[in-house]
Amino acid sequence: MKTITLTLFLFSICCYSQAPGSFQPASTNVWGASYPRVDGTGRAEFRIKAPSATAVKLNFWSNPKLDMVKGADGFWTVSTPALVPGFHYYNFVVDGVDVNDAGSHAFYGGGRDASGIEIPEPGATYYLPQDVPHGAVREIWYSSKITGSWRHALVYLPPGYDTQEKMRYPVLYLQHGGGEDETGWIKQGHANFILDNLIASGNTKPMIIVMAYGYARRAGQVDPDLTGKPFGSPEMMKAMQEMSKAFEDDLTQVLIPYIDSNFRTVSDRDHRAMAGLSMGGMQTFQVTFDHLDMFSYIGGFSGASGMMMMRSGEKPDMKTAFNGALADPEAFAKKVHLLWIGVGTEEPPQMHAGIVALHDAFTGANVKHTFYESPGTSHEWQTWRRDLKEFAPRLFQ
Amino acid sequence: MKTITLTLFLFSICCYSQAPGSFQPASTNVWGASYPRVDGTGRAEFRIKAPSATAVKLNFWSNPKLDMVKGADGFWTVSTPALVPGFHYYNFVVDGVDVNDAGSHAFYGGGRDASGIEIPEPGATYYLPQDVPHGAVREIWYSSKITGSWRHALVYLPPGYDTQEKMRYPVLYLQHGGGEDETGWIKQGHANFILDNLIASGNTKPMIIVMAYGYARRAGQVDPDLTGKPFGSPEMMKAMQEMSKAFEDDLTQVLIPYIDSNFRTVSDRDHRAMAGLSMGGMQTFQVTFDHLDMFSYIGGFSGASGMMMMRSGEKPDMKTAFNGALADPEAFAKKVHLLWIGVGTEEPPQMHAGIVALHDAFTGANVKHTFYESPGTSHEWQTWRRDLKEFAPRLFQ
Repeated sequence: MKTITLTLFLFSICCYSQAPGSFQPASTNVWGASYPRVDGTGRAEFRIKAPSATAVKLNFWSNPKLDMVKGADGFWTVSTPALVPGFHYYNFVVDGVDVNDAGSHAFYGGGRDASGIEIPEPGATYYLPQDVPHGAVREIWYSSKITGSWRHALVYLPPGYDTQEKMRYPVLYLQHGGGEDETGWIKQGHANFILDNLIASGNTKPMIIVMAYGYARRAGQVDPDLTGKPFGSPEMMKAMQEMSKAFEDDLTQVLIPYIDSNFRTVSDRDHRAMAGLSMGGMQTFQVTFDHLDMFSYIGGFSGASGMMMMRSGEKPDMKTAFNGALADPEAFAKKVHLLWIGVGTEEPPQMHAGIVALHDAFTGANVKHTFYESPGTSHEWQTWRRDLKEFAPRLFQ
Repeated sequence: MKTITLTLFLFSICCYSQAPGSFQPASTNVWGASYPRVDGTGRAEFRIKAPSATAVKLNFWSNPKLDMVKGADGFWTVSTPALVPGFHYYNFVVDGVDVNDAGSHAFYGGGRDASGIEIPEPGATYYLPQDVPHGAVREIWYSSKITGSWRHALVYLPPGYDTQEKMRYPVLYLQHGGGEDETGWIKQGHANFILDNLIASGNTKPMIIVMAYGYARRAGQVDPDLTGKPFGSPEMMKAMQEMSKAFEDDLTQVLIPYIDSNFRTVSDRDHRAMAGLSMGGMQTFQVTFDHLDMFSYIGGFSGASGMMMMRSGEKPDMKTAFNGALADPEAFAKKVHLLWIGVGTEEPPQMHAGIVALHDAFTGANVKHTFYESPGTSHEWQTWRRDLKEFAPRLFQ
């Protein structure tokens, strides 16, 4: 083992050959890995060594799997057609087993640390690091009386936070999606760079962003045995509601007071926003409509409570839905400064239809809101990066 | 895909059965994964579903692989004997292909995001979160003129940093090992919790810790083609030296000035330390002995420049080695307040012998230093956590 250190140090310069042509290692790769690689048109090439495998596929989670082809050197390879720009989760499937790509960094999604690849969007620099003042991202740990455990969250502090010691800031609580965690908005989403660039452009208020861990189990709670219970069964829905409520209580009773005690926030509802993607959007609607005394800006990125009703074909009664908060649209518009729902045009049809139906229901009930469609993107990070880019400048103005 | 969100949300409560007996899910697991699991004696159980595989092994990187056994349900399982406490990298080997454990979080090691498992050490709480004031860990990005790229580093700020606005702090630069990255000391090492606990106990000075990315390629540099060059060849050694020097220049010319500009440091040599593990220890010796005007505390955890000479059987001439800094031991002891070398008693023999030989050489040349042996541990994180626990209280006193 004595050569491990040196071997690893040299990993980058001895173990991969140079990428020919216009293909370059993806920005999501680990140090020194030349595969996967992408070209200027969004095509990507992948490879994995599996000499004794009989079938290897490339699995982009939202697309049909691609068959890979075995070479005489034991490497299986595949070239993709041009991919939609942005971040995509993927894995290899080697004889039926999901395998991470050792050349890719891992990104928490699908309930695991999965491989991911960044496909550049020509001309889009709003989520890349630029030569502008940079905020910092903090890891914090806090002890929760709700869950009876230490919990981890990330906090974005805007440029100048350290030096402008008298300044206080509004706060956006920004949630990840189902199967992801509190690291997603930074690692996959680049929320920090998006805000750095927006703030530098002068049209977005400096703000703190808090990214909480979206799962919670109440202290002492034992998970129910759901063996054999079908998806959507009453037992499963009850378990979901309990987890969801534990998250809400942790956020509103522990994390928000912690943030207001430990950072220079403006701790009133006019200076507090919440948004989230997919599951995080549903959580956002639940938390904010339960606590309109705490939040005045609400964003659902490809996810919102009402969407669920739409999917099942129900038409919500706007007089009673959302805790009755929408019964008086004028009063609601005065109270909630921004109600945002966004969706990608290429999301799965029922997902897209659900959000659009909610938009229509809001419109029909004269509920003031903003509807945003991300062109050409699906239920994926490029949609949510764009949501954030459009949403953040409207906060705290 | 519309059910993905809900499916993932429910992942934790539907997809795994409860662990029976005294085995509990490892603390390194992802949310809801009940495998791998550990018991109070340090035994661990692993499983992976691979119905069509013909041979599956469990690979703890520093030990012989263990054969796993296939069950009728398509799961391969294995139980280990009692493992050494601490953090261990591992992967499955499915028909010759390295596969991450979907139940484990990923930890950057071996040049990839790898699986890892934490085996509790009975009675050891010094690296666990306790009910004491907590520091924060910051992610920073800085633009390097040396590498021509944005670089990422982590910064630990001690408890009270935010509120004691006039206080300035000493800084420890703390480096990861070969194949690891700047995240290792937090994710694998728990350096933040170690310092929180040490500071709370009152015997360690509050300090800032900076964890830099230990790889660097000079702007415009093209990696040499080392195809066919044997390990340790002159070409390879030259490439290593170039990378190593680029790291040194980035650290001393860019990162340290950045830290001193952006944090409330005491920016003189008496208040600046550097330590590192394995490759990071070698880098520490290189950087500090090249810049004794910048550092006055030096720590090599299972790694130090001199060790390399020892391994090859050479006896360094202490009059000329280390830039001649040790030629006058009395002057050196006045200048360098702490020279630390540590090693685990169970490290591979040549590794252990190299560090001990360096210790003997220092002793023989009357070079004041501290030698620390971690009982029962190998070239692994438990050794380095203990190094840090013993090293940090001796800094800046």
